[in-house]
Amino acid sequence: MELTVANRPLNIALVGYGFMGRTHSNAFLQTPRFFAVPYQPVLKAVVARNPDRLRKFADNWGYQSVETDWRAVVERKDIDLVDIASPNDTHAEIAIAAARAGKMVLCEKPLGRTAAEAQAMVSAVESAKVANMVWYNYRRVPAVVLLTWLIDEGKLGRIFHYRAQFLQDWTISAELPQGGEGLWRLDVDVAGSGVTGDLLAHCIDTALWLNGSIAEVTAMTETFIKERTHTATGKVQPVGIDDASAFLCRFTNGSLALFEATRYARGHKALYTLEINGEHASARWDLHDLHRLQWFDHRDEGRLRGWRSIHITDSDHPYMKHWWVPAAPTFRDGLATDCVTDAVLKSAKSRQWEKP
Amino acid sequence: MELTVANRPLNIALVGYGFMGRTHSNAFLQTPRFFAVPYQPVLKAVVARNPDRLRKFADNWGYQSVETDWRAVVERKDIDLVDIASPNDTHAEIAIAAARAGKMVLCEKPLGRTAAEAQAMVSAVESAKVANMVWYNYRRVPAVVLLTWLIDEGKLGRIFHYRAQFLQDWTISAELPQGGEGLWRLDVDVAGSGVTGDLLAHCIDTALWLNGSIAEVTAMTETFIKERTHTATGKVQPVGIDDASAFLCRFTNGSLALFEATRYARGHKALYTLEINGEHASARWDLHDLHRLQWFDHRDEGRLRGWRSIHITDSDHPYMKHWWVPAAPTFRDGLATDCVTDAVLKSAKSRQWEKP
Amino acid sequence: MELTVANRPLNIALVGYGFMGRTHSNAFLQTPRFFAVPYQPVLKAVVARNPDRLRKFADNWGYQSVETDWRAVVERKDIDLVDIASPNDTHAEIAIAAARAGKMVLCEKPLGRTAAEAQAMVSAVESAKVANMVWYNYRRVPAVVLLTWLIDEGKLGRIFHYRAQFLQDWTISAELPQGGEGLWRLDVDVAGSGVTGDLLAHCIDTALWLNGSIAEVTAMTETFIKERTHTATGKVQPVGIDDASAFLCRFTNGSLALFEATRYARGHKALYTLEINGEHASARWDLHDLHRLQWFDHRDEGRLRGWRSIHITDSDHPYMKHWWVPAAPTFRDGLATDCVTDAVLKSAKSRQWEKP
Amino acid sequence: MELTVANRPLNIALVGYGFMGRTHSNAFLQTPRFFAVPYQPVLKAVVARNPDRLRKFADNWGYQSVETDWRAVVERKDIDLVDIASPNDTHAEIAIAAARAGKMVLCEKPLGRTAAEAQAMVSAVESAKVANMVWYNYRRVPAVVLLTWLIDEGKLGRIFHYRAQFLQDWTISAELPQGGEGLWRLDVDVAGSGVTGDLLAHCIDTALWLNGSIAEVTAMTETFIKERTHTATGKVQPVGIDDASAFLCRFTNGSLALFEATRYARGHKALYTLEINGEHASARWDLHDLHRLQWFDHRDEGRLRGWRSIHITDSDHPYMKHWWVPAAPTFRDGLATDCVTDAVLKSAKSRQWEKP
Repeated sequence: MELTVANRPLNIALVGYGFMGRTHSNAFLQTPRFFAVPYQPVLKAVVARNPDRLRKFADNWGYQSVETDWRAVVERKDIDLVDIASPNDTHAEIAIAAARAGKMVLCEKPLGRTAAEAQAMVSAVESAKVANMVWYNYRRVPAVVLLTWLIDEGKLGRIFHYRAQFLQDWTISAELPQGGEGLWRLDVDVAGSGVTGDLLAHCIDTALWLNGSIAEVTAMTETFIKERTHTATGKVQPVGIDDASAFLCRFTNGSLALFEATRYARGHKALYTLEINGEHASARWDLHDLHRLQWFDHRDEGRLRGWRSIHITDSDHPYMKHWWVPAAPTFRDGLATDCVTDAVLKSAKSRQWEKP
Repeated sequence: MELTVANRPLNIALVGYGFMGRTHSNAFLQTPRFFAVPYQPVLKAVVARNPDRLRKFADNWGYQSVETDWRAVVERKDIDLVDIASPNDTHAEIAIAAARAGKMVLCEKPLGRTAAEAQAMVSAVESAKVANMVWYNYRRVPAVVLLTWLIDEGKLGRIFHYRAQFLQDWTISAELPQGGEGLWRLDVDVAGSGVTGDLLAHCIDTALWLNGSIAEVTAMTETFIKERTHTATGKVQPVGIDDASAFLCRFTNGSLALFEATRYARGHKALYTLEINGEHASARWDLHDLHRLQWFDHRDEGRLRGWRSIHITDSDHPYMKHWWVPAAPTFRDGLATDCVTDAVLKSAKSRQWEKP
Repeated sequence: MELTVANRPLNIALVGYGFMGRTHSNAFLQTPRFFAVPYQPVLKAVVARNPDRLRKFADNWGYQSVETDWRAVVERKDIDLVDIASPNDTHAEIAIAAARAGKMVLCEKPLGRTAAEAQAMVSAVESAKVANMVWYNYRRVPAVVLLTWLIDEGKLGRIFHYRAQFLQDWTISAELPQGGEGLWRLDVDVAGSGVTGDLLAHCIDTALWLNGSIAEVTAMTETFIKERTHTATGKVQPVGIDDASAFLCRFTNGSLALFEATRYARGHKALYTLEINGEHASARWDLHDLHRLQWFDHRDEGRLRGWRSIHITDSDHPYMKHWWVPAAPTFRDGLATDCVTDAVLKSAKSRQWEKP
Repeated sequence: MELTVANRPLNIALVGYGFMGRTHSNAFLQTPRFFAVPYQPVLKAVVARNPDRLRKFADNWGYQSVETDWRAVVERKDIDLVDIASPNDTHAEIAIAAARAGKMVLCEKPLGRTAAEAQAMVSAVESAKVANMVWYNYRRVPAVVLLTWLIDEGKLGRIFHYRAQFLQDWTISAELPQGGEGLWRLDVDVAGSGVTGDLLAHCIDTALWLNGSIAEVTAMTETFIKERTHTATGKVQPVGIDDASAFLCRFTNGSLALFEATRYARGHKALYTLEINGEHASARWDLHDLHRLQWFDHRDEGRLRGWRSIHITDSDHPYMKHWWVPAAPTFRDGLATDCVTDAVLKSAKSRQWEKP
């Protein structure tokens, strides 16, 4: 792999130092070492509220400065890009302010807690004409990229079916509180929704990319544990998030699909699988076997036809020779997913088919 | 395995000599050789309309006589049991007549083309007090039986999720006619429905057995190839069956489920998989790996916790020591499945949640 | 599949009613029902020493008569074929007598306890010009047959490697006696050897068929449990069989190979796997996934290259359309395997490379 | 995971900038970010002969200085540790000089081209009393570490079998030259041996760690492509390395083992698998499924017994809570492996069993 030294600095301010803050920091440091990128990411500042933990985090990852208020980095002249890795309820306000200040904006998924929030964010970045991206990371998996190539080349023919699931099991215990360190995903005010915005959103983003837009959905959601202690109040309160979410849908291209996400599937830490069935060929991908694409092509010689396990390692595979595709998914892509998750949540309440 | 010689003859008349007629004939011959059963099946008669093929079939499997009208075997005194393996549109009439004649009745699935047909069949066998069974064969798979034992023992705890799919790919070609030899499953008048009654019905029967009754469903169906030549008329006619069918549902026990069946999933000949997730444990079964149960128990020691691939071969496994469970699924069980498939087809049209 | 009624009777006398006696009986009954064969097997007689169990066995499988001395069936005029499924120490005597009496002879593997015994058997059947076959059943697995076709077509190119293993775990307990019902495989006088003749022999037979002759071997064997109660004497006696056996070898075609068999591999009931690596392609087969061939062809388009899991179910696969290949492996083939197992056992003692 | 800021600098000089130079550089940068280590690695200097590529490499990974002669870093006072990632023929000279200069020494595997070279290196580091380690990286795989714990706890009981293989396919083309950029592994003078020192050495190192010492071996090696163009001379010359290598052995604990490595197994990029069978339990690991340990425990309840796929992700798994085990494998461990590879190469020539 050809490496050329990147020479234009890109000054980054990260907001949030949780699990995603760590993974983004790592990505910023690793990218220029493995890919010939035109920018040199500079870890200029990290923002969070707890000063002690913030200092530790900054030291660990090599951030040059710390701030306890995100407004500071939006105002700082030496920041080119604001990366939002803080809880969902902060996305819109920070993104809009950063865009207005002319910063490039990266934002964790889901873009907004609702499509309305996401729409405001899209308007802000598009008015400000700033680069923007939502961290739907599975779009960068080489096996998934290869699949988009195959679909675009028409190798699957007419698409009949799509199905995806994202199964976890980490919230089964009734002892888990809602809210607090690492658990804000259980607090509906902060997260917006439960697995619909957290896990289904991943499945939807990939599906929109691979299979086009969704025409209508019928959905169901469930909250298995109805009450949990809230860390903010110390009291047992009703749980507002959805623990499980599933929907049937029709894509604009006429194909049928099933989607499911849950945090109550014992034995699965993060089983994201997807499958697409076309007239001529089918493909299947599984996050647990990240760098393989399962591929079946009916036009192979009958005697030797079978599912192929393609290990994405050769030089003609995605990212082996080429720099990756330019910034996408954009905020507009993120909005599209939020429109679907809104329709899912609406259908689960209305018990009707709904359009995104 | 202890074998004792069976000594009471059971005189069987088989109706139909297609794929299912072959498998039933084989089962009748093999059972007493491998299990200590109280009856000796006797292949007394086989019924079908084409005399030449009928004769060949009878010779091949050793039937003692042939009939070209099923009424003959219903009337014959030397017949104890009528086994219906003919197309779906013949089930009700034959079963009801056979029951009234005091015969035991076995019937291929689905029991009726509609729940109404099935209800009439149930009434007939229950009034006549004759033994009756529907051929939902997957209830006899040792791995599935083991799973019912584990569920009954409470090893899974509260059930959160169930999911099942049955994927095939044999009708993708638009050249395939509807109706005719081996293709009556594409003719809606004969079959009653497409994959809903043919494939989903299997998934539903197993699910009802494992997870109890279904409270409500929301469904979608699709006919991808809208017109096919009809072998009866030689003309291109609208296709009345569903090529694909999927539904979301809630079980009475509060668990959520997804079901899907299709004949348009390239690369899958007969991929029937099911998974059930409980509070403490999960299990998964795949028809392609018939004699294994995948089992995850959260109460295993954490360090060594993992999905187990249990090969059903030891003496404490189902059917290794014991004769199998008495006749089930009964017609009443078959009716329960028909009620769900009716609700699925109704929901697909009404675009509403429907109760079985 | 076309079925024509077989009309020439083939009168069979089976010697032995153990596990293999059951499988042969089943095969004789099932074959004409699923394949258009020119003979109709007739279960004329079964031979064994225990009259009660013999009667039960005969009733279960439908044998017309029983004999307690194998000499009786060799002499009977109404017997066309003698099938030897009794312990290894009986193979040579019965086969030679049967051949001299002009009977066709089928014999369980290994053919002889030694190559010398096998040679005498080959001479007998070849002098008598009677049909003969050794029951190396894996030659009839469609996936293995497909592999031979691919090799013969040159799809693999020059062969570099072959490897096979047969792993079991049923003799780990030191409590198991040697000899007696179902345990004669642990008695060296009866069995001739342990896993070398029992399990390795299967691996060798398939390998000779797929990859040609073996030029030389270096081997090791081990008896892990040195003493076991002998059922004949009731005394604890040294164990004479090999519990595990492995060898390296070079084939005449220049390829290198590893073979291993054991009954001390916890967790494996009957894991027979084989793999062959050629210049252009590789293939892998696993008894636990009987009807699949794993296939990798380097000449596939690079981007889509991967191991294919070929499910042997389509009409262009072995046995789907055609009657199977004529009688092989013959006794001469069985002798070839015995020559290799002799060389393995010799090398394990001499600690030298040995030629078969 | 608790992270504390490392504060003692560890000044590193890397020799070599090939594939291994890159992975070591990455490891030095990443380790303190993910583990609470007592040292802060400082990339002080990198050494190689091509100044242009060296400069690029240093810029990419952030090395503070470059040197074109390794003697320079051995002499520099500001270097604490010399890390040897250059071709095998340089290991001994550099390691010995570095040790004598009092530097800590890390060295790529195999330690020496022969056990004699390795012995001199061990003597040097032990006389100088400097910290030393060979980069047998698979000892740091959490699943492999877990396996050593289980073995040490006696969960497997008496060990019967061990088997390992390392299969690649990258040298099948006869067009590949020997020697030159990235191809020194094909030049026997530089590499010392072929797959024996390169791939088998990995298998042996893990095996010695898991299963103790090897008593004796019988081996075979092969060079399939006998002549290749040598990049040094531009001429077609005999190939001196082994393309494939396999051996049988007995461990001191009485268990039997098979080992195989090759670069001629089509379809395998780096298939390192190992399996160990004990009286009570078996385990299997596969580099392609890096973070899983396959585990079978016969003492599990019979009905639910099966191979478990343990995903090493929970907090009680290796490295999840604890800092890793102190520096091993040492040079002495590396010597042990070289003694086995010497015995393998010797046995392949002598055609005798040899002791390491």
